[in-house]
Amino acid sequence: MKIEFYDTTLRDGAQAEGISFSVTDKKQIFGLLDNFGIDLVEGGDPASNPKDTEFFAECKSPKLVAFGSTRHRDTAAYADAGLLKLMEADTPTVCIFGKASVLHVKEVLGVTPEENLNMISESVGFLKAHGKRVIFDAEHFYDGYAEDPKYALTALSAAYMSGADTLVLCDTNGGTSPFKVYNVTKVVAEKFPEATIGVHLHNDTGTAVASTLMGVNAGARHVQGTFLGFGERCGNANLSTIIADLILKDYVEETVNLSALTSTAHAIAEISNLNLDPSMPYVGAAAFSHKAGMHSDAVLKDPRTFEHVCPSVVGNKDRILLSEVAGRSAVAKKLENLFPSLDKANPKTKEILDMVKLLEMKGYQFEGADGSFVLLAERMMGSFKPSFELENYCIKATKPDGTNTAEVSIRVKGRVTTVTENGNGPVNALDKALRGALIRHYPQIAEVALVDYKVRVVDSSSATGAMVRVLITSSDKKDTWTTVGVSTDIIEASWSALTDSFEYKLTGQGKIV
Amino acid sequence: MKIEFYDTTLRDGAQAEGISFSVTDKKQIFGLLDNFGIDLVEGGDPASNPKDTEFFAECKSPKLVAFGSTRHRDTAAYADAGLLKLMEADTPTVCIFGKASVLHVKEVLGVTPEENLNMISESVGFLKAHGKRVIFDAEHFYDGYAEDPKYALTALSAAYMSGADTLVLCDTNGGTSPFKVYNVTKVVAEKFPEATIGVHLHNDTGTAVASTLMGVNAGARHVQGTFLGFGERCGNANLSTIIADLILKDYVEETVNLSALTSTAHAIAEISNLNLDPSMPYVGAAAFSHKAGMHSDAVLKDPRTFEHVCPSVVGNKDRILLSEVAGRSAVAKKLENLFPSLDKANPKTKEILDMVKLLEMKGYQFEGADGSFVLLAERMMGSFKPSFELENYCIKATKPDGTNTAEVSIRVKGRVTTVTENGNGPVNALDKALRGALIRHYPQIAEVALVDYKVRVVDSSSATGAMVRVLITSSDKKDTWTTVGVSTDIIEASWSALTDSFEYKLTGQGKIV
Repeated sequence: MKIEFYDTTLRDGAQAEGISFSVTDKKQIFGLLDNFGIDLVEGGDPASNPKDTEFFAECKSPKLVAFGSTRHRDTAAYADAGLLKLMEADTPTVCIFGKASVLHVKEVLGVTPEENLNMISESVGFLKAHGKRVIFDAEHFYDGYAEDPKYALTALSAAYMSGADTLVLCDTNGGTSPFKVYNVTKVVAEKFPEATIGVHLHNDTGTAVASTLMGVNAGARHVQGTFLGFGERCGNANLSTIIADLILKDYVEETVNLSALTSTAHAIAEISNLNLDPSMPYVGAAAFSHKAGMHSDAVLKDPRTFEHVCPSVVGNKDRILLSEVAGRSAVAKKLENLFPSLDKANPKTKEILDMVKLLEMKGYQFEGADGSFVLLAERMMGSFKPSFELENYCIKATKPDGTNTAEVSIRVKGRVTTVTENGNGPVNALDKALRGALIRHYPQIAEVALVDYKVRVVDSSSATGAMVRVLITSSDKKDTWTTVGVSTDIIEASWSALTDSFEYKLTGQGKIV
Repeated sequence: MKIEFYDTTLRDGAQAEGISFSVTDKKQIFGLLDNFGIDLVEGGDPASNPKDTEFFAECKSPKLVAFGSTRHRDTAAYADAGLLKLMEADTPTVCIFGKASVLHVKEVLGVTPEENLNMISESVGFLKAHGKRVIFDAEHFYDGYAEDPKYALTALSAAYMSGADTLVLCDTNGGTSPFKVYNVTKVVAEKFPEATIGVHLHNDTGTAVASTLMGVNAGARHVQGTFLGFGERCGNANLSTIIADLILKDYVEETVNLSALTSTAHAIAEISNLNLDPSMPYVGAAAFSHKAGMHSDAVLKDPRTFEHVCPSVVGNKDRILLSEVAGRSAVAKKLENLFPSLDKANPKTKEILDMVKLLEMKGYQFEGADGSFVLLAERMMGSFKPSFELENYCIKATKPDGTNTAEVSIRVKGRVTTVTENGNGPVNALDKALRGALIRHYPQIAEVALVDYKVRVVDSSSATGAMVRVLITSSDKKDTWTTVGVSTDIIEASWSALTDSFEYKLTGQGKIV
């Protein structure tokens, strides 16, 4: 069985809270989806904003779809501004939505049910006459079917008889249960045996993925969603999850590059400036993580015991988490390259685990901070040789003149180096001054770029005096690592994560599983 | 139809990455679940850690359940350390897990299939003999059924014939599709017509909620999950979503206080130190948010058009988001209390909207920052009268001595007040000095507590010199508001959010929808 995958991250996904794409973002995301093997990519609504018009002018591909709606109630199709904009987008395929619910026809459009049918059929007919492949999104289809099944089906017929190639059943409000999606989709598939039926579902009842699978089982062969599931309210059906479920569990033909699922998801999250939910199925950083001591033990014995698929199939990997519920075997596994002698029975393993637990009680978190963990282990094993020592730093920030100055003195092999730098902010000044001092001794520091900087208030009840945890992710193109610092002082916590980051580059790199 | 709701946030939820509960946290979460009306709360595994033992010693309730496993392979039930710990927890109900998968019996336990059945029946029998209600969690049941249906059912029989009251089918690896959950649960419900059947599902295929609904439709009457869905890997079935789905869509009896769903979810997230996913069904801050101009317009006309249930039923509310895709009616709605004259047609409305769009391009985000938005609107309408002006501030941070000093001078009604304070960090010092200066003029500032402080790197490619966005949430017990500041300088951004927070308290409070 073959399914057509249709991604609407660039249009419906852009409705999500916190999302705002530039034209460059859109082009990059299109490239990622294209390479991954998505069949059709909805690029935007050229009638709604100039950014989308610009995107269609710059990005050309047979996979691109422009999105719009049926003609306005008071204009003819050939003179409708929206439909003309849609034509100008110059894509081989267009998708238009039209109403399939009597409530919406009356309350929102304010036209008669008959006029709405005319709007559908004239709009589809106009686009077909210009040689487009037409996908018809029947908005509020499932709700409309519940209100008045005959009218909802007639709306589909109006599109189909006018030439629509694909009829997509939308659960626009996301409130339809999986059973109803199955039953209604089945009715439609039987009524239109020659048409391609699609589903477009939202996650307001937490069931969009499962309902999509039910839709496919009922006969749908075109699936709409957003790659990471984001969208208005509770989001759209998560396409990355659906694709993996269908291919790995439902014997759908693999028409995509499944082993790039995880990297594609992370790249899209990065461009969208979102932290990818670590618990997202298949692609999340925690999707194949094991924290409980017993589970970690079992996975090290036989991965099938606690993994439903092999992580590499979707380009993800196992991760044994270090934390207060982790066991000694997790610590031993993590350090097997660095200290092969540290097995589960070694008392040093327990000492390291106990230190992790103690520091986590103080607000540290090592689950994601492998860089700091390797330095901690080296310190406890007595093999750590610091590349530099802090003599002192002094930071000054003033307003309204807005200067930020850091003076940093470090000692390397007995010699003190002092550098003073101005920065955009105090942490930036500190980073620049420390970098400037280090680089004189270790030129490889120039390769290190800080790629992410996060701050989390650990105990927010103490207000601005609360303990904060700073996580810094660094990269040298070859490798990426994360370090952690904790303090009530954001500069002190940043300093600690920053020095661990440079120390990891200088001494720890490549030593961890 | 009545369903027994069983929450395992305190045990299975504690396996999630980033979660660590203190005994006090556990007691608070238990209280929230109890008040909400959850039937049974799994409190922890007294054999796994001393924290759980302490919790059971301090917290007593007929709803509490202690969790453990079948006896060890080499000990008799009456002498098994784990089962004895379970008895000591002194709860009327206990839940034990046992293996229903031949793979696990052989690979993980390392015993014969027959011995595993003995372990199940002797453990259940021992607990029943001591008057406990026994819930049997059949670990890996669905996978075990796929490998060897006869053995999986025999494992259930071993528990049932020894007196287990509830047989819970677990999809421990989370890889079973909703269809299989339905079919297998149906087989079990038909084979054990007198037993209460339960389901315990994980979200590795993104379908845990839907599969739970399918399980109920197949005959399950006991549902396990975690209130917010967190748990190892991709999480457990989200109980808050399931409860709302079952009551609002599936005609299950309302045995809980459904209108407290949202407040309970937010309080549990707060205690767990997690940011509640804004897109979480029913309870998320964005669950009933509308951003697209057209959707916002329609919801203002008739909420049914884009809402599948009334938000107040689950204690949530509508939110019209301000952002670059918002329309003028969203701005007008937001400000209707403050400036009733600002309707959709007023040119000032468009000016405010354009300013929001411009600032959002610079890194601001007003979707969550109502406090700063109301001040922005007042400034643009010319009605803003600042309560104070900054003369200057100077911050100094040094290490190793670790002092953080802020000197702040503000002007109130022509008079300059200067206060110098030390703090735990530079932002705390700034907060204390500004507070100290303001309080001399405005004693009500003493009521304001900062409850959350977030930092987000807006454009992480510029490293520590990147633009950062600071969001500060403040509260005076009566009201909670969020303000935003953006700068490359974290202190400057914090200052901006901090001053907006105090200004909102002094001038803007209660003025927004």
